[in-house]
Amino acid sequence: MDEKETGRLEAFSDGVFAVAITLLVLSFQPPTTPDKLRDSALLDFLYMQWPMLFAFVTSFATIGIMWINHHRLFKHIKRTDTGLMLLNLLLLLLIVFVPYPTALLAQQYAIHPDQHLAAVVYSGTYVIMAVCFNFLWRYASYHNRLLGKDVDRRAVMAISRQYLFGPVFYLITFGLAFINVPACIILNFLFALFFAVPGRPPRQLSSSNASTDLSQD
Amino acid sequence: MDEKETGRLEAFSDGVFAVAITLLVLSFQPPTTPDKLRDSALLDFLYMQWPMLFAFVTSFATIGIMWINHHRLFKHIKRTDTGLMLLNLLLLLLIVFVPYPTALLAQQYAIHPDQHLAAVVYSGTYVIMAVCFNFLWRYASYHNRLLGKDVDRRAVMAISRQYLFGPVFYLITFGLAFINVPACIILNFLFALFFAVPGRPPRQLSSSNASTDLSQD
Amino acid sequence: MDEKETGRLEAFSDGVFAVAITLLVLSFQPPTTPDKLRDSALLDFLYMQWPMLFAFVTSFATIGIMWINHHRLFKHIKRTDTGLMLLNLLLLLLIVFVPYPTALLAQQYAIHPDQHLAAVVYSGTYVIMAVCFNFLWRYASYHNRLLGKDVDRRAVMAISRQYLFGPVFYLITFGLAFINVPACIILNFLFALFFAVPGRPPRQLSSSNASTDLSQD
Amino acid sequence: MDEKETGRLEAFSDGVFAVAITLLVLSFQPPTTPDKLRDSALLDFLYMQWPMLFAFVTSFATIGIMWINHHRLFKHIKRTDTGLMLLNLLLLLLIVFVPYPTALLAQQYAIHPDQHLAAVVYSGTYVIMAVCFNFLWRYASYHNRLLGKDVDRRAVMAISRQYLFGPVFYLITFGLAFINVPACIILNFLFALFFAVPGRPPRQLSSSNASTDLSQD
Repeated sequence: MDEKETGRLEAFSDGVFAVAITLLVLSFQPPTTPDKLRDSALLDFLYMQWPMLFAFVTSFATIGIMWINHHRLFKHIKRTDTGLMLLNLLLLLLIVFVPYPTALLAQQYAIHPDQHLAAVVYSGTYVIMAVCFNFLWRYASYHNRLLGKDVDRRAVMAISRQYLFGPVFYLITFGLAFINVPACIILNFLFALFFAVPGRPPRQLSSSNASTDLSQD
Repeated sequence: MDEKETGRLEAFSDGVFAVAITLLVLSFQPPTTPDKLRDSALLDFLYMQWPMLFAFVTSFATIGIMWINHHRLFKHIKRTDTGLMLLNLLLLLLIVFVPYPTALLAQQYAIHPDQHLAAVVYSGTYVIMAVCFNFLWRYASYHNRLLGKDVDRRAVMAISRQYLFGPVFYLITFGLAFINVPACIILNFLFALFFAVPGRPPRQLSSSNASTDLSQD
Repeated sequence: MDEKETGRLEAFSDGVFAVAITLLVLSFQPPTTPDKLRDSALLDFLYMQWPMLFAFVTSFATIGIMWINHHRLFKHIKRTDTGLMLLNLLLLLLIVFVPYPTALLAQQYAIHPDQHLAAVVYSGTYVIMAVCFNFLWRYASYHNRLLGKDVDRRAVMAISRQYLFGPVFYLITFGLAFINVPACIILNFLFALFFAVPGRPPRQLSSSNASTDLSQD
Repeated sequence: MDEKETGRLEAFSDGVFAVAITLLVLSFQPPTTPDKLRDSALLDFLYMQWPMLFAFVTSFATIGIMWINHHRLFKHIKRTDTGLMLLNLLLLLLIVFVPYPTALLAQQYAIHPDQHLAAVVYSGTYVIMAVCFNFLWRYASYHNRLLGKDVDRRAVMAISRQYLFGPVFYLITFGLAFINVPACIILNFLFALFFAVPGRPPRQLSSSNASTDLSQD
């Protein structure tokens, strides 16, 4: 509506993604009683941190691939308005929040592998994030509101179609969190990989043609 | 005075905003005695963190919308000088400080909901921030000192007028902090939303015309 | 020598400056025994944090104004080589380190106002930083090694002259740290302000002319 | 495959590098019992932190020089695809992880200088990082997949050749970690410096010519 370029919006978002993904490492803490830990005890300590490593990698992959998708959307989104800025802030709010449920899940799973609440909170965060991603994209792409004039309509439709899966997928992991925590984390990781690959246009015709259209912006 | 472009000033500011808004999540800490917290106890623990979530969302909204406004000002500000750089640093100093009163307020409200000092500090920070934002804008826009030559005068006046409300609004929440803490936080959140929407020019004539002026820079 | 543009070097440096300046806030921690702190006790607690606030503002000003100077240097530096990249990394190493002596000084001064070691470490860090800044600039400006062809020679000489004061100034605060800690911090703050203002060219002729030269790059 | 420009990929990576390198400082913590530490005791405390300073500088140099190399690769890489983005994320995952083994090594070496496990974890992280760097570059440079059309083939070969040393070098430090921890850290530092200097083309002919080719992008 009122602005033109998305450059600074993207730069700010890149910054937030970069900080949030890096803060994940703060979940790892050296032992608090190091004086008792010679190598054999330290090995046990590190072994106990496997759930943390697992949650760290999954959250890293999720935030990283969210960034790839953010990047992909903003190749098509050329203009901004107040609504887009607020929806983008809402998405970033969830991205920024991820390190907390990650640390919570890792801590709980290491101590109480039979408990489910932390995994429920973790997956629930991703459900909301998937919904926000859809809102952002639908808002921008509705009647080409904020897209470029020469937008590749098939690429836009491919994104819209792929993103429909987001909330559905994450609702499945949300449900799984009540049943089996490791399976829930693994599925979250696999879904992240699914969104790493760009969606296909409705029919698989002329993919070379589509990539040509894309390469010129 | 001495510089021309504001590009690196904006990039640095974007970085500071992005880090400060992301550090807010560090207020959330997993339980320190996790071994005692099975799911039912963890649920109580998380429930106790609602004031934290509330303060987190409000501070996130405030910093995020401060960023939107910073972005909006620098669409008009085309040049920099030492004065602007120092005023911008002063504003960033307050932005960077926000995670501390946020954590303080969240901690205090969870334990002593009848106490007011943390909310007073929290709101007081925002009063000073609103004053700094005004200083920055008045300094840059005074006699068009640092604005572009082809600046949209009506948009400039709209910003100047809207920003007059800032210190007044935040003085109200500051006063409210002494009376009712939840009301104070809610009002802070609403004021953030008020500043998310761009100010209107003095008279509502030809908004399409104004947006045309804006869209060309 | 081998590269041309300094864009990504500046972007990376901006990021490091932005994160380091924001991490300063982590020195502030909410009280560890909040259940005992009703408003009157909290007020005492916050009052005890004044040295922290003082050290925070001084370090913020120092890093912020270091950034302004970095910005100022790289208006003249147009090319990079491995030497410049390593010297820049060395400078960033010191910038990144600042939050630690800041936290140390603030903690020590609150508890042992009669002790000097923390202030010595704090000022010592700034001495080394001032030396590194000089190395960086001398390396880049030596025989115009990495400056633009149409560089403003008077502006370059003004920077070189002003930077000579850096190590001398900070050696004074370093000495003062052994004698009087508050005076040492105040002087650090004043020196930061001195470097906020750009140096004057050797003779004050045609400052308008100089600014014209500058404004065209 | 699908994208053209690497600008935002580089900006995001710069952000992650900048945050990770700055978070290293969080390994330094002021003393937890400051009330007992007057200057003489504080001096002992700081002296005990020498291994930390040593590990901090080595990790800073390693991440910093990884950034220089990332910068160097992306002068040649002009296009991106999903594979490159994922390999870049994998590399960033390791960069982001570095502060943890650094803190672990510093803590362990200060308390148990005769133990090796922390150094093994530290060096092991760098082995994997070196392998990832090779993957990223081989993927991008294979048949010039993602390089510019007018790429300097000799510079590309120089990088490919230099990077072959990476995994070999870091395997040596990995082995050394089992034998002598200080030697292992020193060697890590020296290897970082080796990668700071750009690799030489296969034969040392016409380096001026090569730099001319480079300087035009």
